[in-house]
Amino acid sequence: MKATKILSTQPSVTAFASIGGKKEGEGPLGDYFDKINDDPYFSTDTYEKGESMLQKQAVRHCLDKAGLDAGDIDVLFGGDLLNQCVGTTYGVRSFDMPFLGIYGACSTMSQGLLMASLFVDNGICERAMAVTSSHFCTAERQYRFPLGYGGQRSPTSQWTVTAGASLIVSRHSKPPYARACTIGKIVDMGVCDASNMGAAMAPAAFATVKSFLDDMAMQPCDFDYIVTGDLGKVGSRLFCELMQREGVDVSQNHKDCGLMMYHAHEQDVHSGASGCGCAGSTLCGYFLPKLRAGEIKNILFAATGALLSPTVNMQGESIPSISHLVWLSHGTTI
Amino acid sequence: MKATKILSTQPSVTAFASIGGKKEGEGPLGDYFDKINDDPYFSTDTYEKGESMLQKQAVRHCLDKAGLDAGDIDVLFGGDLLNQCVGTTYGVRSFDMPFLGIYGACSTMSQGLLMASLFVDNGICERAMAVTSSHFCTAERQYRFPLGYGGQRSPTSQWTVTAGASLIVSRHSKPPYARACTIGKIVDMGVCDASNMGAAMAPAAFATVKSFLDDMAMQPCDFDYIVTGDLGKVGSRLFCELMQREGVDVSQNHKDCGLMMYHAHEQDVHSGASGCGCAGSTLCGYFLPKLRAGEIKNILFAATGALLSPTVNMQGESIPSISHLVWLSHGTTI
Repeated sequence: MKATKILSTQPSVTAFASIGGKKEGEGPLGDYFDKINDDPYFSTDTYEKGESMLQKQAVRHCLDKAGLDAGDIDVLFGGDLLNQCVGTTYGVRSFDMPFLGIYGACSTMSQGLLMASLFVDNGICERAMAVTSSHFCTAERQYRFPLGYGGQRSPTSQWTVTAGASLIVSRHSKPPYARACTIGKIVDMGVCDASNMGAAMAPAAFATVKSFLDDMAMQPCDFDYIVTGDLGKVGSRLFCELMQREGVDVSQNHKDCGLMMYHAHEQDVHSGASGCGCAGSTLCGYFLPKLRAGEIKNILFAATGALLSPTVNMQGESIPSISHLVWLSHGTTI
Repeated sequence: MKATKILSTQPSVTAFASIGGKKEGEGPLGDYFDKINDDPYFSTDTYEKGESMLQKQAVRHCLDKAGLDAGDIDVLFGGDLLNQCVGTTYGVRSFDMPFLGIYGACSTMSQGLLMASLFVDNGICERAMAVTSSHFCTAERQYRFPLGYGGQRSPTSQWTVTAGASLIVSRHSKPPYARACTIGKIVDMGVCDASNMGAAMAPAAFATVKSFLDDMAMQPCDFDYIVTGDLGKVGSRLFCELMQREGVDVSQNHKDCGLMMYHAHEQDVHSGASGCGCAGSTLCGYFLPKLRAGEIKNILFAATGALLSPTVNMQGESIPSISHLVWLSHGTTI
């Protein structure tokens, strides 16, 4: 049980914020965002600066909701998909907080939440924050084609979410609580198609969720939802199938952030949504408020990340993936 | 004293390895590497795959020196300069270790050491590992120009080190010990010249070292060396000057990894060396063995990272930087 850690003090996720773009505002989760920005430039002159603005807004809103200043935060964990994580570094540079940069691709929010929870649970700090973002326009031109090219998207491709999300973990007795977590291992099953990241990431989600359930001797029925993100349509089917092969039925309570963000047909997103901001904002906008209110009692949050770069993928390499997991509860007993 | 954490159990850095390229083998630290590779491709067909091989070798050598298997490691912290940190993810994917990706540019080794030390000190795990790398050929073509272009390098530019380094932190009573650490904050003084990263990073090193000394009420003379990396010639001068202005004289015991790696004139490296592998391999190859042997009693290790990307730099942005610090000792009392 090396990778799974029980968080014995059950730290609270005391504040959370999610900021979205126009398309996200028009999706089924539209009403759950704290703020929707219709301008993809976020009042800056480039998409990259816009993505940094998204992170700045996410941190600012979260601090405001918590009634805290930047100086009250002991450490900030942040990362994103952009080369050298500049969405984060330029977004948070004005906040004067101790900062630890993380890279987990689309699993960034579960990695940040996991690390913030471990730091608070072990008394390394009092209040830890996590932030992430993604942006359709920055991701398209970095990973795929210039937007003006109008490239055809394959049926297995996913639409990068324009959203930022952040949360604060503190030692506090207010739901939701972080109860345990599993640090993921890199899994690479040889999938080389960068337009089918769901298939590349499903085995990582499977490995992490399975090892959590085994380590804790728990069942899928112990949770309202087993939340992956962002496997999309293809990856979600594979994830359930891989679990089924091991005799574990998650079909009744599996939710994938990549399938929750958009109206699949009307919004023309093919296999679903993706991006650090997808699982991040779905957690901070939808799940955490419901866990706080007690509408949901227990979830496993297992965001997934594809750890490729366009360069090595074009050199013929397959796509290594990872998934980190945090168990979140409304109560402190099962 | 929020950012500085005392490591009360004084975890040991029980193993370390450094792997270099041809030019590094010809420098003043050449004999301190565990292994020198003359082939810049590391027997692969691309430089990027070569850099991953460098990380694989660094992890493998470190495990061998410790007499451990991958399964003995509870968590691996790793990152590098390549887009999406692929030097790391492809380098370590075969090891089947719980993995937490980090991004701190050239400060990666101090961030990894800091996190590994905090995890072990607080009982989150028994054995934590950190790994990083950089490669001249991958960095040049990603950050600057295609190698074949033969671009002129400016006098303030630094030469990216081709090296990988890794270390293992455990609860053990064997020197060297990690005694305390300071999590850095992002500092941006408005330097926009990507050919002068030393100037961009010096204020970050200053901020972190100064806050450690203040938090701990210690003096530069308490340490054999205050080690920064990789400020190079320009940044080192600025670092000493910034400290001097605050009345702290570090000129007697300041060492910069960027000035230690190469013979400045003979090897034609302009302002010095840089890259995650620079501070990483100087620590793992030179300082840690001397700390273990007692030839050196105390150092502050404060690697520095420039958190830019070429994209945002070309959009006119300045260069945010960060420095994380770990105090390493031969003994457990000052």
